[in-house]
Amino acid sequence: MPKIAYLGPQGTFCEAALRILAPDAERLPCANVTAALDAARSGEADGAVVPLENSVEGAITVTLDELAWGDPLLITAELLLPVEFSLLVRPGTEMTHIKRVYTHPAAITQCRNFLARELPDAVVVAAPSTAAAALEVSMEDSPYDAAIGPAIAGEHYGLDELAARMGDRDDTVTRFVQVARPGPPPVPTGADRTSLVAFLRDDHPGALLEMLSEFAVRGVNLTRIESRPTGDGIGRYFFHFDAEGHVAEARVGEALSGLHRLCAEVRFLGSYPRADRVSPQLKHGTSESDFTEASGWIDKIRTGGM
Amino acid sequence: MPKIAYLGPQGTFCEAALRILAPDAERLPCANVTAALDAARSGEADGAVVPLENSVEGAITVTLDELAWGDPLLITAELLLPVEFSLLVRPGTEMTHIKRVYTHPAAITQCRNFLARELPDAVVVAAPSTAAAALEVSMEDSPYDAAIGPAIAGEHYGLDELAARMGDRDDTVTRFVQVARPGPPPVPTGADRTSLVAFLRDDHPGALLEMLSEFAVRGVNLTRIESRPTGDGIGRYFFHFDAEGHVAEARVGEALSGLHRLCAEVRFLGSYPRADRVSPQLKHGTSESDFTEASGWIDKIRTGGM
Amino acid sequence: MPKIAYLGPQGTFCEAALRILAPDAERLPCANVTAALDAARSGEADGAVVPLENSVEGAITVTLDELAWGDPLLITAELLLPVEFSLLVRPGTEMTHIKRVYTHPAAITQCRNFLARELPDAVVVAAPSTAAAALEVSMEDSPYDAAIGPAIAGEHYGLDELAARMGDRDDTVTRFVQVARPGPPPVPTGADRTSLVAFLRDDHPGALLEMLSEFAVRGVNLTRIESRPTGDGIGRYFFHFDAEGHVAEARVGEALSGLHRLCAEVRFLGSYPRADRVSPQLKHGTSESDFTEASGWIDKIRTGGM
Amino acid sequence: MPKIAYLGPQGTFCEAALRILAPDAERLPCANVTAALDAARSGEADGAVVPLENSVEGAITVTLDELAWGDPLLITAELLLPVEFSLLVRPGTEMTHIKRVYTHPAAITQCRNFLARELPDAVVVAAPSTAAAALEVSMEDSPYDAAIGPAIAGEHYGLDELAARMGDRDDTVTRFVQVARPGPPPVPTGADRTSLVAFLRDDHPGALLEMLSEFAVRGVNLTRIESRPTGDGIGRYFFHFDAEGHVAEARVGEALSGLHRLCAEVRFLGSYPRADRVSPQLKHGTSESDFTEASGWIDKIRTGGM
Repeated sequence: MPKIAYLGPQGTFCEAALRILAPDAERLPCANVTAALDAARSGEADGAVVPLENSVEGAITVTLDELAWGDPLLITAELLLPVEFSLLVRPGTEMTHIKRVYTHPAAITQCRNFLARELPDAVVVAAPSTAAAALEVSMEDSPYDAAIGPAIAGEHYGLDELAARMGDRDDTVTRFVQVARPGPPPVPTGADRTSLVAFLRDDHPGALLEMLSEFAVRGVNLTRIESRPTGDGIGRYFFHFDAEGHVAEARVGEALSGLHRLCAEVRFLGSYPRADRVSPQLKHGTSESDFTEASGWIDKIRTGGM
Repeated sequence: MPKIAYLGPQGTFCEAALRILAPDAERLPCANVTAALDAARSGEADGAVVPLENSVEGAITVTLDELAWGDPLLITAELLLPVEFSLLVRPGTEMTHIKRVYTHPAAITQCRNFLARELPDAVVVAAPSTAAAALEVSMEDSPYDAAIGPAIAGEHYGLDELAARMGDRDDTVTRFVQVARPGPPPVPTGADRTSLVAFLRDDHPGALLEMLSEFAVRGVNLTRIESRPTGDGIGRYFFHFDAEGHVAEARVGEALSGLHRLCAEVRFLGSYPRADRVSPQLKHGTSESDFTEASGWIDKIRTGGM
Repeated sequence: MPKIAYLGPQGTFCEAALRILAPDAERLPCANVTAALDAARSGEADGAVVPLENSVEGAITVTLDELAWGDPLLITAELLLPVEFSLLVRPGTEMTHIKRVYTHPAAITQCRNFLARELPDAVVVAAPSTAAAALEVSMEDSPYDAAIGPAIAGEHYGLDELAARMGDRDDTVTRFVQVARPGPPPVPTGADRTSLVAFLRDDHPGALLEMLSEFAVRGVNLTRIESRPTGDGIGRYFFHFDAEGHVAEARVGEALSGLHRLCAEVRFLGSYPRADRVSPQLKHGTSESDFTEASGWIDKIRTGGM
Repeated sequence: MPKIAYLGPQGTFCEAALRILAPDAERLPCANVTAALDAARSGEADGAVVPLENSVEGAITVTLDELAWGDPLLITAELLLPVEFSLLVRPGTEMTHIKRVYTHPAAITQCRNFLARELPDAVVVAAPSTAAAALEVSMEDSPYDAAIGPAIAGEHYGLDELAARMGDRDDTVTRFVQVARPGPPPVPTGADRTSLVAFLRDDHPGALLEMLSEFAVRGVNLTRIESRPTGDGIGRYFFHFDAEGHVAEARVGEALSGLHRLCAEVRFLGSYPRADRVSPQLKHGTSESDFTEASGWIDKIRTGGM
């Protein structure tokens, strides 16, 4: 049974993601993203699950920077998890009993409408995390009557779920990735994603345009691009890319090779099945058989066998 | 005397930035970035100074999102402020007296070497902000002997500076911007920057490449690009751009017009003097006189006067 | 009644083109393309009609070079004329009488099948032009029994048309242009073409790519591109372009202005109605109203009125 | 001793080119370019030398079209031959004797200054070719006193050279190529050129830009581009390209493979030493070792060995 580290404590959305990504794994909660990734790096765990981006908040920059600068890890899977908040109470508590609510500020913001409508008189207090709020509320002598957090936090701390899907918008999603120590990427499925980090050789104008051209010419679409500071002063960035396809595919391999030749450094972060199962629409001339045929054509030319 | 809001409390790096950007202004400390910008929007203040990015931490996303989504504001100036930490103590305290240090976790991280070398036995405790740490230490009955924070925090709270420039790397910089309610941009200086936000019309592959081409063809270099989620699901982004030059210049105006035609929406965030005073190297054929001459040429063609 | 010069002698395809382009004009046959264009330049004629390209033979390079290097002229109209050959004989001659055929070598090539099928035993002799062949055959004492040439040559020289559309392929087309001395271009029709010549500033790699980008970014499609030697040695070229649209349109005007700024020299050759009446499919954001709206937007930004 | 066909008759510039390219070859003069190439195709000759372009006149279109449409041939060498005209006379003729000059019209044009200065009263008559003029003048009963043509024509026909380098501009050059039946290309020299023909898949706007991008992204510079009609109507073209480098090089091979995948058809015309011996300036990241290193990098990623 593999052991997988995650951003704890118990009852986080990250644990919920881990339960879906690796249902049979032993789960190792860690205090923060760096600790979870370090557990995977050191061998204390066989892998880790961490958040990468949120559809409202954006990139989880600590994860981006850890994957770019820390000892290499390989993304092997991803998951899109809806961010759904539940109202969690000690058994027996009813709606009318709730005077004080405890939760993380992000949850306060995202459940503003529910709170105004259903608990207009309740005092809402900020907690360090939703899981911590649930733990606190689970104690008999807690000054708080309810926590807002993921349903899984209620399960962990023996709380009842008085309300579900409390968020003002029900389409907020967090993208989690599962990582492992370096090794062969998962086999291609036809609907894969490839993640990588690229450091420019020199920060000349047009460098980003050149990088994008390496993908475009091979018909590889990008699904995400993030700039991050290199730490060497304002105006110096490196880039995170997510691209359609798998490094085992010729078009992706050639694009990555081109980027590798262009850049000071490219770090491969993994090729893995897309959570949304969407297969890319291939541009004419960029399928595996197109590359194989072109390779045979050039070989024949080089040896005079045309 | 203008009143300028800033990210408080008193003694923050943001106040230090404001003192340089607008030495004569009345200063209005605000609890967070949104509050500072709202003060400028509402007329409570005549403007605001907020952090935009840090050379190590990256973008201040709340500022990016406020400028993109909130009521429009215009950036009128920028400042690059070195992040320099000082060791602040109550008068009379000496190095050997220091048993407990209080500061923000980012400062703990960035002053790791100093602490290990000079205060190896001190307990270091996390504070909500460096300014809050200074305030706390200024109290006679504080359990803490020293705060780490900006020199300006020491001035505010009557503390002595036992050590300066404590950070492990002395080139960390935060970029602050001053904003005002919409109006004419500052006059061009020849070394200006233009900031804007662009929302794609449809998220087709190659859309970013098209946006960058609008700048490249007019010889306008980008100095920063940040993707931010639109909130409509993973994989949907809008973009912050900083470009060389001033909207009053023909090349910048034409590039922005092209972007405006290409995109669903472009929000102009301002043209203002560059903090680093660097004048752009103009690509051949993109100076003001080149544009003027070309405009006259095309007019002559259209009227048959060639 | 305007007088229009053309590539003579009487009875050429060029005369046929002129009769369609300017039915009421007085026609001035000239010995060659240069003479016809010089007649227009000098004022001896009010304009000229000359061939520009042929769908099988390609560009008429003397026309391209005259328009690029000679005193400026403006293309005001174009015509696509099918190249249709007729078998022309003195009245009374029948098919069985034909022993010797006289025509230009290009016509021999293009009528190969007809000659093999219908006149397998005839001797075919090369003439300097199809019009000259018709003139020769029109003489009573000619050693030739038939000429191959345009129907119009038969009319001119009093010959009967024994067969029409003799060519092996019936889709060969020659494109003729009508030129005038410089002046305002014809008014836009919505289905126009713009011709121009561009000389590179320096022949650096990627210069052609840069030129094409000036068109592409403004959504202006090119319908023809020809490289011609500058005369300064192998490997040095200038370019003829035909583009969709009219210089009066904003997108075309901006593309030409951009090219003008990029290149050592751009010579405008004219905007005129397309012979095929095809209206361009405008790329999103490149219509007149898009440009007008964007222009207003940038004006508002510049004056602070957003 | 190989037999090489060329554009005859004896005494042409093409023969002069052949003598330099293949000094020891048996020479087979042919009536026109097609006949020379057919001799190579059929095995009647082992190869052929034909003109490809001229620095003043431009492309020799019959050569371009033969290489594109006829049975495949491989360019194995090129030569840049200065076009130098000599005044050729029967032995004993002196300058003052010359009353009538015979030569090809192109030579009349290019020697205009010499004729005006040195032979202002001579009658100049047009000949079908410079070699034919020399042959005619070599006959004792010729009505002409002098021919203008290549020095080699004088040697052939027993004429004396009364003047050399008569042309108005002394930098006119014709580029000749030597072709053979398909086989392995000559070994790379480090200063090579690659010729090819590309037919677009569909004639969509931007197709040429896409083709050029295939070269640009791999750092392969183009030295010549010619559009030629496909014969399927005005507005439909195919393209001749000359590129720096040899198909055996990785960057050229990848660019050609990319073009092959993009286009309906690409015909390889040969990789051969450049006549001007110029080695290309490689763009960073496009050397053989860069490609080899990148290939090893991607292999390691694919197998998990990073």
